[in-house]
Amino acid sequence: MGELLRLRELVRQFVDERDWDQFHTPKNLSAALSVEAAELLEHFQWLHKGDQAELGERKLTQVRHEMADVLVYLVRLADKLDVDLLSAVEEKMVLNRAKYPAELVRGDARKYDEYKD
Amino acid sequence: MGELLRLRELVRQFVDERDWDQFHTPKNLSAALSVEAAELLEHFQWLHKGDQAELGERKLTQVRHEMADVLVYLVRLADKLDVDLLSAVEEKMVLNRAKYPAELVRGDARKYDEYKD
Amino acid sequence: MGELLRLRELVRQFVDERDWDQFHTPKNLSAALSVEAAELLEHFQWLHKGDQAELGERKLTQVRHEMADVLVYLVRLADKLDVDLLSAVEEKMVLNRAKYPAELVRGDARKYDEYKD
Amino acid sequence: MGELLRLRELVRQFVDERDWDQFHTPKNLSAALSVEAAELLEHFQWLHKGDQAELGERKLTQVRHEMADVLVYLVRLADKLDVDLLSAVEEKMVLNRAKYPAELVRGDARKYDEYKD
Repeated sequence: MGELLRLRELVRQFVDERDWDQFHTPKNLSAALSVEAAELLEHFQWLHKGDQAELGERKLTQVRHEMADVLVYLVRLADKLDVDLLSAVEEKMVLNRAKYPAELVRGDARKYDEYKD
Repeated sequence: MGELLRLRELVRQFVDERDWDQFHTPKNLSAALSVEAAELLEHFQWLHKGDQAELGERKLTQVRHEMADVLVYLVRLADKLDVDLLSAVEEKMVLNRAKYPAELVRGDARKYDEYKD
Repeated sequence: MGELLRLRELVRQFVDERDWDQFHTPKNLSAALSVEAAELLEHFQWLHKGDQAELGERKLTQVRHEMADVLVYLVRLADKLDVDLLSAVEEKMVLNRAKYPAELVRGDARKYDEYKD
Repeated sequence: MGELLRLRELVRQFVDERDWDQFHTPKNLSAALSVEAAELLEHFQWLHKGDQAELGERKLTQVRHEMADVLVYLVRLADKLDVDLLSAVEEKMVLNRAKYPAELVRGDARKYDEYKD
């Protein structure tokens, strides 16, 4: 079984043991995902770059755990909406390659729609 | 190779072709991740539950793509911080099991720290 | 002096006493604002509607404080970017009235760009 | 009438003309506020500091409008929850002064709870 399916099973079991499926509407899960992403961002908000050296060991552990929470909610949302995350990324990367042609955007972080100006 | 490592390679290649690594500090990536999570939430904000039927086909495709963006930035951040996402989730699930014992929280979505009241 | 200018002074004084201006780049403040908005959302994520009765007194107090944090960072960001928040809202409301004509969108919460379909 | 009450009236009228009050549960409004805060952050995510010079005139206008959206949803949420935003900020600033004593945190952006280490 692939890693993402294994994660899905791990999360399903955790949720079922707690009878929390009743709270897991896609809407609620997307809110929870957004909250976890912000908790991750919180660790970086006053830092310069937030690399390993600047974070330090204790903060890096906290960051790892927030990243885990983000992935857990993403996997759970994918489960509830029957989304195959791997296919979704592969599909999106095709769109991204079309939107940001390498030769046009090299070294430039502006958004795609700014290139139309 | 596992799925998450394959995704890491896919994203690395996309970034390298565009010379975007210079923008990918962990701080910037965590902000971008948070922005994508909010774009995902935006699709659900006025809906009732946001399940497949309520979303409809067109919106579900958009949701899939936002979920892909979230995963791409998460995988990229993990790459820059040398975080193994699978281990991080397994480690975090152990902590979650300790914080939310099944027999105590069954059917109850309050946060852990509210159980101390 | 108007209320928003009074708030600006209150926040300026708090920041200056702590010599925190050095951290208050617009980028950092917008990240902090986003984090506070998510902390606010966290209180509502598993609730049904989140009205006063459902929140209860203790949670409502926490919600009030998160709302205060959002306003503080917004006022601070406006200070650093010389933005007049009142004029900004008045200007934006004109745009919103053009984007969402009352007779077209009455009772419908879809996004503006969905009306073009 | 104070500025925030005037804003409240402006937003009430806009919402009533569109019969959108039915969508404005505190939960939905807090999600919308979080989404707007992220749209604001999006303008800054790849910038260095995001000051006026780095933003440029066109982006600064977009930033002003996103800040307006944040304030509009905050004022609307305050309306639905009967929260007086000015009192909330004044109350929160008292708590912040206790949590971050100027002489202890001067020039240091770490979070309060890190001082306990």
